Amino acid sequence: MMSNNLRPGERLDDLQIRGYGIIQDPARFCFGIDAVLLSSFAKVKAGERVLDLGTGTGIIPILLEAKTPGEHFTGLEIQPESADMARRSVAHNHLQDKIEIVEGDIREAARIFEPAFFDVITTNPPYMIGQHGLVSSSDAKRIARHEVLCDLDDVLRESARMLHPGKGRFYMVHRPFRLAEIMSKMSSYGIEPKRMRLVHPYVDKEPNMVLLEGMRGGKPRITVEAPLIVYEKDGSYTREVREMYGLDAEK
Amino acid sequence: MMSNNLRPGERLDDLQIRGYGIIQDPARFCFGIDAVLLSSFAKVKAGERVLDLGTGTGIIPILLEAKTPGEHFTGLEIQPESADMARRSVAHNHLQDKIEIVEGDIREAARIFEPAFFDVITTNPPYMIGQHGLVSSSDAKRIARHEVLCDLDDVLRESARMLHPGKGRFYMVHRPFRLAEIMSKMSSYGIEPKRMRLVHPYVDKEPNMVLLEGMRGGKPRITVEAPLIVYEKDGSYTREVREMYGLDAEK
Repeated sequence: MMSNNLRPGERLDDLQIRGYGIIQDPARFCFGIDAVLLSSFAKVKAGERVLDLGTGTGIIPILLEAKTPGEHFTGLEIQPESADMARRSVAHNHLQDKIEIVEGDIREAARIFEPAFFDVITTNPPYMIGQHGLVSSSDAKRIARHEVLCDLDDVLRESARMLHPGKGRFYMVHRPFRLAEIMSKMSSYGIEPKRMRLVHPYVDKEPNMVLLEGMRGGKPRITVEAPLIVYEKDGSYTREVREMYGLDAEK
Repeated sequence: MMSNNLRPGERLDDLQIRGYGIIQDPARFCFGIDAVLLSSFAKVKAGERVLDLGTGTGIIPILLEAKTPGEHFTGLEIQPESADMARRSVAHNHLQDKIEIVEGDIREAARIFEPAFFDVITTNPPYMIGQHGLVSSSDAKRIARHEVLCDLDDVLRESARMLHPGKGRFYMVHRPFRLAEIMSKMSSYGIEPKRMRLVHPYVDKEPNMVLLEGMRGGKPRITVEAPLIVYEKDGSYTREVREMYGLDAEK
């Protein structure tokens, strides 16, 4: 298990797919269901180049490599400790030829990479603006959850520059309370919203996540999909979410 | 039943609420579930003045008068035959003191009425742009369904002018495929989207309608509600929709 790669406080978690693992530190940040849902919502075709903005411990590139026939995956992360963990996870899974982790700032992404270089951009960005939500004491968590180092405008502006015009696709998971702002800004940066799915904890509850697909230079017509329900009434995962987690695959 | 008020081809339909009826001509246009859902989604408080843009046969003002404590309701309709039917329905229900039907053009609404006069604006506008959907042979149906005489920009521009700043609310039912465009345009006309509900025919199907609430001068934060499901698996209405139609009230 190469557990000699683990530093104090870290653990190696099984991703339930292809035997892949991920190194995480619970004191810093562990991936949540939003990453799993985004990796299932995003469509990556054979031969495509993918960039994940704010990749953290690299969960999205690793899951996308496992789930899709994409050619190459890049993760951009500003926090050195997170980027280092992501690189060690990539090595643990022997994916150095498929996944590259780059340390850098989302606000400068289009200068780090070539314009129009990517077919797909994914991002699970900080959801919270200003005073929304509690600010967590740990800096790593705070940077992941709050728009401290980058905001929605940064993500969309840089993504528009790096996506292939007329076919480059953008996938994001975010909070529904910012939906109107997200759609307006996507349109104004030229990443037209093309597909949306709301994620509801229970079928009769408000959504707490939204999955969005945009296309650089797309025409304004969006497909809103059936709701994605996370839990059955008894609190167990629905079959669809179990499949996304790979929970029924090992039988 | 004052059926002597009916012209050839017309019929008087029971609205299942307060004994109210509505005069309709199936060859022209009959109200659909979208009008019923909009009248339940819109919130009208005691003392408020309401305007319905493109009121057709007056279904929205009549249902809102029955369901809410609003002070006064105005329906604006460009087609003389529809406006005449709406007036005869208002008279049939003895609502002349509560509902006024005005014949006129949405594109000039803010000149017909005073600026900032209304607390609430409702609209069930034409959904289809250009080549989307079949163009129906009848002019009345075509005008109701396609953006022939007014488009989304007209509706939002005029509504923003007529709504009370900082508290005036806008309620619209529309099609989800235009959601991104709707949200961008609402924001750009200063009617911030504040509440949204998607309407799904069945729980596992894509939505075919969207209900939106905006506020003139509101801050950008939207509440997305639980999905509204129209049919049970067996094809019967769900309890929520039965209640909106008043179908269980007569027991």
